[in-house]
Amino acid sequence: MTRKEVIVMRDLLGTNKQVAAEIRKELRARGILSVNLLSSPGSGKTTLLEALADRFRGRRRMAVIEGDIETERDAERIRARGVPAWQITTGGACHLEARMVGKVLGEVPADLDLLFIENVGNLVCPASFDLGEELRCVLLSSPEGDDKPKKYPQAFLTADALVLTKTDLIPHLPFDPAKAAAEALSIKPELRVFRVSALRGEGMDELAAYFVEALARLRSGHA
Amino acid sequence: MTRKEVIVMRDLLGTNKQVAAEIRKELRARGILSVNLLSSPGSGKTTLLEALADRFRGRRRMAVIEGDIETERDAERIRARGVPAWQITTGGACHLEARMVGKVLGEVPADLDLLFIENVGNLVCPASFDLGEELRCVLLSSPEGDDKPKKYPQAFLTADALVLTKTDLIPHLPFDPAKAAAEALSIKPELRVFRVSALRGEGMDELAAYFVEALARLRSGHA
Repeated sequence: MTRKEVIVMRDLLGTNKQVAAEIRKELRARGILSVNLLSSPGSGKTTLLEALADRFRGRRRMAVIEGDIETERDAERIRARGVPAWQITTGGACHLEARMVGKVLGEVPADLDLLFIENVGNLVCPASFDLGEELRCVLLSSPEGDDKPKKYPQAFLTADALVLTKTDLIPHLPFDPAKAAAEALSIKPELRVFRVSALRGEGMDELAAYFVEALARLRSGHA
Repeated sequence: MTRKEVIVMRDLLGTNKQVAAEIRKELRARGILSVNLLSSPGSGKTTLLEALADRFRGRRRMAVIEGDIETERDAERIRARGVPAWQITTGGACHLEARMVGKVLGEVPADLDLLFIENVGNLVCPASFDLGEELRCVLLSSPEGDDKPKKYPQAFLTADALVLTKTDLIPHLPFDPAKAAAEALSIKPELRVFRVSALRGEGMDELAAYFVEALARLRSGHA
């Protein structure tokens, strides 16, 4: 990067950080747990949210902010499960920014428990942008390969949890989930690691419990 | 984006375009066909290159420029197939730029036929950066889903060929290759579409022939 590019990037990240801090403060005050989902395109973020919607139905109130470059497709899938969803289309931009999330916050229902933010499918750029979330989850699907954490370290370094998805495909793939987890943990030892097949429901109880416990901690003031 | 960001981005793209044009001119003069491979992380770019290396061994001379944020892993895999490879680690940047490719060109053997450039795994940012390539191929793996072209249109719009990869997994997935191809063709009707399983070798003859024909056109001056 040229010096001018470095300065513009620094200003952009600085402004984003301030807006993110305001969002986090507001969501904490309202007792809403926010979760930022990061991954490559097609790692299963929307399918995971559909499975969570089914699991939380009648038990916890959830909503979703969908980030995509183009189309309303993901928000439509979520709404079809009876969950409120707002689509942010970035029109070319490779990540969500806190100000985009901030614009939607006024429409979020007062009695919400969980607010999921599905970032643009991209394992690189979204890692640098705090969206005011309480938890950041990075998804890695088994077909992507177990060598990805060290190739895209920032996403794993900034995450609280790693969700290994599409575990039902593992018998058909050269993928070792223990190797993927170990490599991610070598980057960020505090990562909580989950293995799920959202299509089959495997591992979803543990993941849902993780969010419910984090919500309880947030509301007890120990987030 | 702010006005300042727009100006910086415009300058960056303008400079990149100039450098790319110089690279294209030099490679054409040397009779080398260059191919820029774009896709999400884990779509199978390196595995495709390994399969091409096996197919071209003793018949065409190929080399690879590997772009990654971190690690030399991909270049090592390519070298293990007896193919020269240069690793560019961007150290955080989400795409390759022409100047990065330009730095390696001096080391490229004079008698080369095919120069593949494997971009950083990212379906968004690399689409905006011309690397001086003759052909751009976008890969979409079956586990990523057939709804991706319209969600990430720029990568498909700027490509010459679409390679649907990991077709061996289709029986285990909710993926319709005809739907994926039709959606990509609705964005870019001129796209050549290939279906391959690099691990099993399926579809590799057609793809290899496509590159060999493009090389012949380039050397006959009809690129």
